[in-house]
Amino acid sequence: MPSRHAKADLPLDQVRRFLEPGPVILLTSYWKGERDVMTLGWHTVMEFTPALVGCVIARGNHSRALVEGSGECAINLPTRGMADAVASIGNCSGTEVDKFAAFALETEPGEQVGAPLLRRCHAQFECRVHDRRLVDEYDFFVLEVVRARAATTPRNPRTLHYQGEGRFMVAGDSIGRRRLFTAGKL
Amino acid sequence: MPSRHAKADLPLDQVRRFLEPGPVILLTSYWKGERDVMTLGWHTVMEFTPALVGCVIARGNHSRALVEGSGECAINLPTRGMADAVASIGNCSGTEVDKFAAFALETEPGEQVGAPLLRRCHAQFECRVHDRRLVDEYDFFVLEVVRARAATTPRNPRTLHYQGEGRFMVAGDSIGRRRLFTAGKL
Repeated sequence: MPSRHAKADLPLDQVRRFLEPGPVILLTSYWKGERDVMTLGWHTVMEFTPALVGCVIARGNHSRALVEGSGECAINLPTRGMADAVASIGNCSGTEVDKFAAFALETEPGEQVGAPLLRRCHAQFECRVHDRRLVDEYDFFVLEVVRARAATTPRNPRTLHYQGEGRFMVAGDSIGRRRLFTAGKL
Repeated sequence: MPSRHAKADLPLDQVRRFLEPGPVILLTSYWKGERDVMTLGWHTVMEFTPALVGCVIARGNHSRALVEGSGECAINLPTRGMADAVASIGNCSGTEVDKFAAFALETEPGEQVGAPLLRRCHAQFECRVHDRRLVDEYDFFVLEVVRARAATTPRNPRTLHYQGEGRFMVAGDSIGRRRLFTAGKL
């Protein structure tokens, strides 16, 4: 029987299905023997092919140095059952705490990057830094997703969407408007 | 009795409450007698103060020329009741259709920008183009929100979050994890 965390490869141009709705993500990184994980809500899809994602990794974060040093990271997609971990990870620093141990985060190795992947997450996107022109001024990294894996079920994961003030909107049901779309616009 | 669309000014550093959860937005623009509206799902908060928002306005859109020409636009936040209009607006072009008439969009004037604001939307953010360094390569504009208005109720608007394939996730309920936050991290 497959594990409930069993994942399949996802075509890279479908990464947008999971990121465009705007969930908080857990960004993992690894460099020179150190690893970290941070909660991140400021990101956007930027292109289908190559699969580009822009995200703000503020300089106060321990992860920032690991991403800068390695030029790599992984985006992991947490769901409702991980809300406590998501909030707690965002409120401590990897310079003081081994967050993987503190929050019992099971990891598995990536294929394209050194960053650990989070097993309980619904999806895992391995990324390389693609453009750092806006890093110095806005902490904004353009990442290219080079490998994507996603759980095959449920179809609509209950992702978490940060609203500020310690509150998260939990993804609700999905509605279809396909009849109003033209083929090239889906 | 106040209209159900009655809005109040929102401090600019709170714009993130509405955009960080990742909803699709309706971007309006005006230049030299022409106006347009487009549906847009690729955006991210980039800074609290100034209130910066990055978004991809692809060059195929009529709106792109109006934003480039005027250096301004407005972000309007639609909710579930506007799902048909949101989908339809994303599937026709302002060069062929007056979308405001076609989809019965009531407008009201902005204060800081020439772009019309959409009355039925839950929030309206008037914006000026702040940085266009990534426009030529990625169609990515950094906008500064210069005026923000939001409906005072409901607290959790049922925003729409695009998943691709003609499907939208509708914002679900909100959960609080404030006890896990430190003051500076809210």
